[in-house]
Amino acid sequence: MSQPTGPRVIVIGAGGVGVVTALSLCVKGSSNVSLAIRSDYELVLKQGYEINSCDYGPLKGFRPHQVYRTVEEASKSGQFFDYIVVTTKNIPDGPTRSRVPEVIRPLVESNHKLSDGQNTNVLLIQNGIDIEKDVWNAFNKEDYHMCVLSGIQLIGSTKTSPGVISHVGRDHLIVGAFEEGNTDAIEAAKRFVELYHNEGKNHVEFDPCVRFSRWKKLLYNAAINTTTALVSLDVPRCLEFGVGKKSTEENIFKPAMQEIIMIAASEGIMLDESLATFFTEITRHIMFKPSMCIDHEKGQLMELEVILGNPLKIAKSKGIETPVLSMLYYLLVLVQGRLKEKNGLLRFDESKAELIDD
Amino acid sequence: MSQPTGPRVIVIGAGGVGVVTALSLCVKGSSNVSLAIRSDYELVLKQGYEINSCDYGPLKGFRPHQVYRTVEEASKSGQFFDYIVVTTKNIPDGPTRSRVPEVIRPLVESNHKLSDGQNTNVLLIQNGIDIEKDVWNAFNKEDYHMCVLSGIQLIGSTKTSPGVISHVGRDHLIVGAFEEGNTDAIEAAKRFVELYHNEGKNHVEFDPCVRFSRWKKLLYNAAINTTTALVSLDVPRCLEFGVGKKSTEENIFKPAMQEIIMIAASEGIMLDESLATFFTEITRHIMFKPSMCIDHEKGQLMELEVILGNPLKIAKSKGIETPVLSMLYYLLVLVQGRLKEKNGLLRFDESKAELIDD
Repeated sequence: MSQPTGPRVIVIGAGGVGVVTALSLCVKGSSNVSLAIRSDYELVLKQGYEINSCDYGPLKGFRPHQVYRTVEEASKSGQFFDYIVVTTKNIPDGPTRSRVPEVIRPLVESNHKLSDGQNTNVLLIQNGIDIEKDVWNAFNKEDYHMCVLSGIQLIGSTKTSPGVISHVGRDHLIVGAFEEGNTDAIEAAKRFVELYHNEGKNHVEFDPCVRFSRWKKLLYNAAINTTTALVSLDVPRCLEFGVGKKSTEENIFKPAMQEIIMIAASEGIMLDESLATFFTEITRHIMFKPSMCIDHEKGQLMELEVILGNPLKIAKSKGIETPVLSMLYYLLVLVQGRLKEKNGLLRFDESKAELIDD
Repeated sequence: MSQPTGPRVIVIGAGGVGVVTALSLCVKGSSNVSLAIRSDYELVLKQGYEINSCDYGPLKGFRPHQVYRTVEEASKSGQFFDYIVVTTKNIPDGPTRSRVPEVIRPLVESNHKLSDGQNTNVLLIQNGIDIEKDVWNAFNKEDYHMCVLSGIQLIGSTKTSPGVISHVGRDHLIVGAFEEGNTDAIEAAKRFVELYHNEGKNHVEFDPCVRFSRWKKLLYNAAINTTTALVSLDVPRCLEFGVGKKSTEENIFKPAMQEIIMIAASEGIMLDESLATFFTEITRHIMFKPSMCIDHEKGQLMELEVILGNPLKIAKSKGIETPVLSMLYYLLVLVQGRLKEKNGLLRFDESKAELIDD
């Protein structure tokens, strides 16, 4: 591929989502695309990615314009990146080094030194609500000329082995500005849509009210993703194994979604109640295991705080009752604790039966 | 051991609890004790049990007066059994053959044929509430001259390998009649206490209001046993991994116990509210995994229906709100479904994403 002269984009997170994100930008050919690859760096440098894509067909030897081993390496390239696209999981209670502000910090700082007045656009293609706040808290928006953009992606794409991506569910990306009145951010989001859109292949849209879309997607994640993670079952089994094949949707999924609808309403976002049925039905007959269930199975931390912790903080501040979501949360916090201990993020002294405070 | 002439007792279930039950009766020496042993039959016949008992010291070669390979075999012995003591798990949603009425049926029938007017006393040393109802529904009490007795056992005893029992937590058995006005049953319960009591070794008491004791023990099991099973953690970790080390007790354990207190109150059983704190503290500093957690880990069905399903049926009939217990139940029903599928008790057709109705 030739090196286009358009904006420079770096994608962080070379999993199923990140690689297809880089691919979509490269196919369009209107931007200069970098990818920060950790584990598969050598392999990808040598032979590129093998991608079986429902949007782009079978591909061998795909490589974006630049690949970097780490974000630090990219930050030392002397390049200014117009877009820093984050496709990693968002786990604020995970290890410090993998929290979003720390992940992007080297690039934000190098951009800051190189900037000639250009904005640094940070696009978070991630689940959850209020994920922009950690970035805003970590960097002064004005000092750093930073726009934080919101990306909501519906896609089925998995890295099945090193350098191999199986992209089975079509890519639908929604992009907008976290700050709805920020014209720079709105323009940056609209421009990204142009850089990303491949007519007849993927689906991408600018969203003027991206928080609405986040709450909407959260209906599924806060109610269904969480439940599957707690009981280690795919969605159809969760529905079918319920009492009379009914209790899961009637006593867990729908009441949990109803609580999200009430929390969203408390900040003026009106989600239609029919969405609870829509999301219950959407994967009833698909053998689908949502992300938190898969993370739990793999022994990895789950995106619990951005999917449940943050909405519950809002509910608490507004005095909204959330019996179902709270139970899911307090139970999943324990599962997350087990995963943290397994991953060495917390330690438990069995002789005292107490957490070791580090 | 000589063959005593007292009442004939058969213990069903040769796990950690059943073997110590048989041992306690044998040590006293006032009854003729049989044990139905499944998997370890040959071994026990040859060399007896090796028991490391906190109540009776280290023992080698322990054998009750008779051992049988199965309940059927015992039922063909031509013996009348005054007491049929059931120490198996009570899982009414498990395989038909292992449900309590089916397990005891051969002995109840053979007793019925042999009876010369004597009563058949069925003692259920098991968890849960309303467990006697399945037995009453299966056998006509008058026809079969049957008294159903209630045993609540606090004990720490495990079969660690074939024929080897590790008894580490002292035996405390509470015995009473399920029917409080049934004088035959009351007398039979009192007599069992005498047969079982070994001064200075174990602790056993007759309980005139055994349903009170069942509700009391259920406080722990319905709130704490269930939670540990759902998140696969011992009790201290459940407490310590909570939000601010507080949410597990404040938002799960204590509200769940409060709901049990309300259900019990609806049938006139007044449990002191301080018990919620008592049971929260009792295993806070003991590295204890309750039975449902262990069953889940072993891939075995859990005693979910007698511990949670039955109390919730009572709550529903009385119109009592149980948000916390219901959530635990509806979630654990899904885990139980996973265990049932694993054990071949239900089948799921992934091509249709549906349960196969047998």
